[in-house]
Amino acid sequence: MADGGEVKLLGFWGSPYALRVIWALKLKQVPYDYLEEDLLSKKSSLLLQYNPVHKKVPILVHRGKPIAESLVILEYIDEMWKQSPLLLQDPSERARARFWSKFTDEKCAPAIKAVSCSQGEEQQKAVLEAQESLKTLESGLEGKLFFGGETINFADVATGWIGCWARIVEEITGTSLIDAENMPSLDAWSKRFLELPIIKQCVPPWDKLIELNSGFVKMYLASSK
Amino acid sequence: MADGGEVKLLGFWGSPYALRVIWALKLKQVPYDYLEEDLLSKKSSLLLQYNPVHKKVPILVHRGKPIAESLVILEYIDEMWKQSPLLLQDPSERARARFWSKFTDEKCAPAIKAVSCSQGEEQQKAVLEAQESLKTLESGLEGKLFFGGETINFADVATGWIGCWARIVEEITGTSLIDAENMPSLDAWSKRFLELPIIKQCVPPWDKLIELNSGFVKMYLASSK
Repeated sequence: MADGGEVKLLGFWGSPYALRVIWALKLKQVPYDYLEEDLLSKKSSLLLQYNPVHKKVPILVHRGKPIAESLVILEYIDEMWKQSPLLLQDPSERARARFWSKFTDEKCAPAIKAVSCSQGEEQQKAVLEAQESLKTLESGLEGKLFFGGETINFADVATGWIGCWARIVEEITGTSLIDAENMPSLDAWSKRFLELPIIKQCVPPWDKLIELNSGFVKMYLASSK
Repeated sequence: MADGGEVKLLGFWGSPYALRVIWALKLKQVPYDYLEEDLLSKKSSLLLQYNPVHKKVPILVHRGKPIAESLVILEYIDEMWKQSPLLLQDPSERARARFWSKFTDEKCAPAIKAVSCSQGEEQQKAVLEAQESLKTLESGLEGKLFFGGETINFADVATGWIGCWARIVEEITGTSLIDAENMPSLDAWSKRFLELPIIKQCVPPWDKLIELNSGFVKMYLASSK
């Protein structure tokens, strides 16, 4: 069997990091087989074999070779399938896209998570910190429609989940993170991005996301008591 | 003045993240002006202007545009100056290099730092965790001379400082992190890399590094009491 072009994705339906890879594959119209990992029970032997270092999804398997770490996977997808480029040609624009993608993972993601994993005064502090990091992320838009300018690029695909997950945490915790008044550009960008048909169709149903993440929060708070 | 190709680097002599950028510029023989930041006193207005998000070195300024985050800078340098490529052509090799560079920053660096910022039982635990992450990093060499194979590449330039800094922490704390017996490949790679003349000439003097980092550790332990 000539499986030279075979693409598999190991993911978990509720993972924003798997979602960004799915978005990239869909945008480039790369066909792939999807293997769902049941992270709530036991990790599969395939997952442990393909990503022994982090033991996490997503993992892209192409021509039998596994690639782990979602931002690394996005770079790989963009280099392997040249159609609908995610990164522009200009090296300084590429650097800009990578900078904000990294910022989202290193600053916004843990800040939003901290809101959901805290209560009371600690949570109030976490909200302020999350708002600050999201406000900084907003500055990366520089008043444009998308991080990529008129159309979406690498940074939008890498960062787009943050709008959705911030709202999940808002709903679960009753807090306000992306405030339309204080962060009008980020708020509008987030809605604009998530309403694009090719993006929207990949996002799991809202009530399922709320149920899953409420469960995570309850488990976390119970275990940390 | 036609300063179209002008390159400036804002660094700090004791920063391993600035060092990896210096290595990349030297390997590619890109001339640049070096601006030393005195991080022990006040951050310069230039630093705050060029990297308002993180307020950290290194910052590469090319044609007046600042690029921050050392791994992002390495990608930029490799794309802007094509000679002596750091990343190979093959997308899966590129992914491999990015994976280990990211791993070093996210796992090895904080694990080694934790050893220097702890004492007693806590330090013993930190040593085990650092050894584990370094052992994992070693697996990335896959028995080769360098992460790049026969010659150094992106991952060696990004990761090479870890050998030097692990030994600094070993000397300051009297612990053992990269053990020649348990990590023979990583130990040999580290020495091999740091002995390359173009790499070695950029590394600050050993006694100055020990003095600087001993000072950091003393300050940290005093402030956390």
